[in-house]
Amino acid sequence: MKRLAILGSTGSIGRSTLSVVESNPERFSVISLAAGGNVDAAFEQAQRWRPRVVSMAAEADADKLRGKLKTAGLADMEVMSGAAGSVRVATHPEADFVVSAIVGVAGLEATYEAVKAGKTVGLANKECLVAAGELITAEAKKQGKPLLPIDSEHNALHQCLRGGEAREVERIWLTASGGPFLNTPAKDFDSITVEQALNHPTWKMGKRITIDSATLMNKGFEVIEACRLFDLPPSRVSVMVHPQSTIHSMVEFVDGSILAQLSVTDMRLPILYALTWPERIPSDLRFPVGDLRHLDFSPPDMGKFPCLRLAYEAAQAGGAKTVALNAADEVAVAAFLDGDIRFPEIARTIEEVLGRTPERHPATIAEVLAADAEARRLAAERIQSIAGNKAGNLRPALASHK
Amino acid sequence: MKRLAILGSTGSIGRSTLSVVESNPERFSVISLAAGGNVDAAFEQAQRWRPRVVSMAAEADADKLRGKLKTAGLADMEVMSGAAGSVRVATHPEADFVVSAIVGVAGLEATYEAVKAGKTVGLANKECLVAAGELITAEAKKQGKPLLPIDSEHNALHQCLRGGEAREVERIWLTASGGPFLNTPAKDFDSITVEQALNHPTWKMGKRITIDSATLMNKGFEVIEACRLFDLPPSRVSVMVHPQSTIHSMVEFVDGSILAQLSVTDMRLPILYALTWPERIPSDLRFPVGDLRHLDFSPPDMGKFPCLRLAYEAAQAGGAKTVALNAADEVAVAAFLDGDIRFPEIARTIEEVLGRTPERHPATIAEVLAADAEARRLAAERIQSIAGNKAGNLRPALASHK
Repeated sequence: MKRLAILGSTGSIGRSTLSVVESNPERFSVISLAAGGNVDAAFEQAQRWRPRVVSMAAEADADKLRGKLKTAGLADMEVMSGAAGSVRVATHPEADFVVSAIVGVAGLEATYEAVKAGKTVGLANKECLVAAGELITAEAKKQGKPLLPIDSEHNALHQCLRGGEAREVERIWLTASGGPFLNTPAKDFDSITVEQALNHPTWKMGKRITIDSATLMNKGFEVIEACRLFDLPPSRVSVMVHPQSTIHSMVEFVDGSILAQLSVTDMRLPILYALTWPERIPSDLRFPVGDLRHLDFSPPDMGKFPCLRLAYEAAQAGGAKTVALNAADEVAVAAFLDGDIRFPEIARTIEEVLGRTPERHPATIAEVLAADAEARRLAAERIQSIAGNKAGNLRPALASHK
Repeated sequence: MKRLAILGSTGSIGRSTLSVVESNPERFSVISLAAGGNVDAAFEQAQRWRPRVVSMAAEADADKLRGKLKTAGLADMEVMSGAAGSVRVATHPEADFVVSAIVGVAGLEATYEAVKAGKTVGLANKECLVAAGELITAEAKKQGKPLLPIDSEHNALHQCLRGGEAREVERIWLTASGGPFLNTPAKDFDSITVEQALNHPTWKMGKRITIDSATLMNKGFEVIEACRLFDLPPSRVSVMVHPQSTIHSMVEFVDGSILAQLSVTDMRLPILYALTWPERIPSDLRFPVGDLRHLDFSPPDMGKFPCLRLAYEAAQAGGAKTVALNAADEVAVAAFLDGDIRFPEIARTIEEVLGRTPERHPATIAEVLAADAEARRLAAERIQSIAGNKAGNLRPALASHK
């Protein structure tokens, strides 16, 4: 019986995790849950799973949850909030496996504390590796505990890497769907609308990651995550566009053999893999191999998608540059979604922030958060200057979004 | 340092094996060689590799080789012939790894004796698993030694199977190029010429295996080999046509994950893998992943390619039926190559022989060889009756071959 702590329980990964638990009640129990601001969903999960502790992002929401639980006769359940609550959920002494799926830097501290507390961690939070990967992987190594990737590409790589030793890896190939603008000419990028950018061809995901897929920044983040998770330099992590997203990634070994992982595009599969590793248990998540007809591939166009190039540059520098890459991207994507900047300005904003970020290596989570805040400030500064200058010009392209 | 015995050293696999040895002289030495009838090639190999013993198929060739070696100042090298010579090569006390690549049932006894002598065996001889697989896998299990497959599909499966435990395998997917008649209408099969059948789209191989690829019987043999090598019923071994032969095979695990192996179509890669397993060592056999554009798949048409269906039926029955499948195919393919029967008669001959073969399980290699001889007799009988009846009719279709 694995005893789970779930950080981000009411989000997409959190809900998929609980669906996997539901299908395998004899294997998993739920010890603690950290939710965001959805009190109703948190209440339902608390009722269903009876965790020892639930945490909400805001104290006001924790209070609301306490009220609901009292009415339901569950007044004894511990309810906390904020960073302290997430850390309590992540380090609960009864939990042995922590699913890290809080979106954004909010998940950093709790995940780091979980690793420090010797928990096995399933990683779905991008920032843990992009912004704080050097700290978190070092701590996991020190603890002798695995970091199990819960996203389709790195989970695929984890599976393929079983085919050899780490020293036998020549190169890692991350596949990318290419996003909705794979075949859009670069000259049309200026007029891309938010609706177009949110229309991802293969995965249904949150808004930010969908835009990050459209710019290929998501693949850039994955390059950085792969470097840190599997201890490889960026020069040995390559990207291939593969619109069907059937092959989730590949590992090329020194002898010339390549192992690839294929499966349905359903996050429950990498979650199940991480939760049961080193075992595999049956699921109904079957890819219909007999119906397979065509798989297409092409190299990524870094000229058209400068975010991927910027990610490689940040990966090479490491430290504060990767913190800034993530922070500037989050701010720029939010500005694009709000209609404040055009699509190509996302990359330009990030490039400017990277240029203004000094090369240094944060030694603590607090230093990571400080670098993150500084990059956000720089990004916001630039966006304000563009949005201020061009507000009139932007309206036509954004009309369909607002 | 691995010390090799090579059964079939002057054949295609034998030569590729020696090319791998040549590239890695610090890892491998050559202890013994068994050649067929090519005295010049055997002499060259003996001079280059200085094995302890060389065996030729026929005593007359062994004598010729002795003469050449004497002239070259190598009179001390032991030269043997026939079955006793192959067995001596396969069981030489100084050899620890035996490459089994003699074509046909001639390789059975020597391979079985190698397994019995506790050698690690790399299997390239199809008959070892198709005709005598039940005996050879049982003996390998008893010895606690691995059988390492040296053909691209089973070698690919061996690699993919590292991604989980045997009990976690749901299904094996063998890929098939589909051969030269993938898109030929069944109605045109009667007029297929030998040249057309020998024109394989992706692999350059010997004549029999090329014809077996054109009928899909080769894939049928591989189904049987996979069942025996990986201890699976035929119902859990499937075939998918994949004309590019880039994905060499796939393993589907119970959780829904599928691992696939990709590489260049060069036999040195599976040979290198088998010789170095469980390690992988660098090679220059690189598949250009960056140039990958399209992979195509389709289900096999068992109506058009009845040999595949016959192989599944034989696999289900096991024992003498699989011996007969291989023997009848070898005789029928030879008759097709000689212009004695038309292409569709290959399958019809095998079907008749299978129907006349009783279900029984040979308990010794001698019993396997007896079942083999009986099936050959039945196949020859039928071919004689067809060729006798239809000789006049066959000439037009065969004109281009003779």
